[in-house]
Amino acid sequence: MKNFDAKEQTEKVVQFIRDYYKSAGVGGAILGISGGKDSGIVAGLMVEALGKENVIGVTMPCHSKEEDKTDAKLISDYYGFELINFDITGTFDTFKNELEGLGGFSEGDLKNSDINLKPRLRMATLYYLAALYSSLRGKTYLVAGTSNKCELYVGYFTKGGDSVHDISPIADFTVEEVIKIGEYLKVPEKVLYKQPNDGLSNQSDEDKLGVKYADVAAFMEDENAVDEKVAEKIRKLHANNLHKFNIPTYKKSA
Amino acid sequence: MKNFDAKEQTEKVVQFIRDYYKSAGVGGAILGISGGKDSGIVAGLMVEALGKENVIGVTMPCHSKEEDKTDAKLISDYYGFELINFDITGTFDTFKNELEGLGGFSEGDLKNSDINLKPRLRMATLYYLAALYSSLRGKTYLVAGTSNKCELYVGYFTKGGDSVHDISPIADFTVEEVIKIGEYLKVPEKVLYKQPNDGLSNQSDEDKLGVKYADVAAFMEDENAVDEKVAEKIRKLHANNLHKFNIPTYKKSA
Repeated sequence: MKNFDAKEQTEKVVQFIRDYYKSAGVGGAILGISGGKDSGIVAGLMVEALGKENVIGVTMPCHSKEEDKTDAKLISDYYGFELINFDITGTFDTFKNELEGLGGFSEGDLKNSDINLKPRLRMATLYYLAALYSSLRGKTYLVAGTSNKCELYVGYFTKGGDSVHDISPIADFTVEEVIKIGEYLKVPEKVLYKQPNDGLSNQSDEDKLGVKYADVAAFMEDENAVDEKVAEKIRKLHANNLHKFNIPTYKKSA
Repeated sequence: MKNFDAKEQTEKVVQFIRDYYKSAGVGGAILGISGGKDSGIVAGLMVEALGKENVIGVTMPCHSKEEDKTDAKLISDYYGFELINFDITGTFDTFKNELEGLGGFSEGDLKNSDINLKPRLRMATLYYLAALYSSLRGKTYLVAGTSNKCELYVGYFTKGGDSVHDISPIADFTVEEVIKIGEYLKVPEKVLYKQPNDGLSNQSDEDKLGVKYADVAAFMEDENAVDEKVAEKIRKLHANNLHKFNIPTYKKSA
């Protein structure tokens, strides 16, 4: 975070988004609004770049807390973009019912599958709505991604879920840098300083990972900046994560 | 397809799969069995590499023809691997019902969204089952991809759908080469020579694309090998397809 200039970086990201939209000949952005800071800040950047009339936010509760929806509303009211609610609880439950045909499974067996099904259904929902509104409104909507650099480094995302999107504005910013941008954009404080959690497992993201994002950011700049035990944990998370990006592919020439 | 040696290539792919499984410390493979040649051949390769007891095939009908299920059974019987049926029709319909809350849409508005929802639900299903059976059986199942080189070149796949997988055995083979490998593996002829279609739109893949895969393969070797009009079409499909692989990402250093 040496010499991080939030104003300069915000202006550059906004220009990057505008340039890409112009070159690709597309017009709208759609993104999931979880009620957390990352999606709030990406929404702010897309509104800044494209205008609020070209941004659609989507809340996709799935057996979720009402609070997340309230915070999503706070963000959409603040920026003035359209907010759609698409409840995926029914879709999730129907999927799970279908599973009963395969045998009786314990909650423990299903836990990991359940946790990752939700972001995958959310991705499918965003792309469904992106195509629908592109057709209805005669401009192409892109799905905006909300992953930050720390999450991407340690693999805190779901392959085939939130990792699937069409433009990635904050993927090169650490959590601390994302917050600086949020402060510059005046994202409502309640959202900006909320302890992030996935809304799925009732644990904070950092609890689940077992590392602090501040340590991940420090490690990425200098491996010796954190305790060796912490460094080892981050190295392991990062190594386990690499397969999500590089699909092993047979090549004839090999 | 100059000098394509199906026996040599098959042996090399099988070795590639075995090597990767060993290095990654994983044990099983799960894949969608559409009843078409690509999934049939990938199933054959995975069985050859890992043994039939480590391969699970999944049929995922969605308002589908019964014939596809019969052909999937033909393949699983031939190779002797386990075949699971997981009907996604209910999940698909529940999703569509939820949509009604957003307003009245015409079939035309929804058509493109519907076509791509199915492969995304199938991807979510495969990953759900992969995690479940990994937990149940104490070995990690990878999702095997079934895209071939021609489809990948012209973008005949769904981003966030069949493009999401963990290992890609036939991605560097043209359609013609895939068939040669299928012949070497003695994949049942009914499956091997079936006109491919996505089971979604009642059109053959080639009809939908407007180009023949043989022309795509010829073009990839030599752009002048096909009619200029055909070449132009292939170039356009390929260009439109590139964004699916390269997500535009803002970089601080830029």
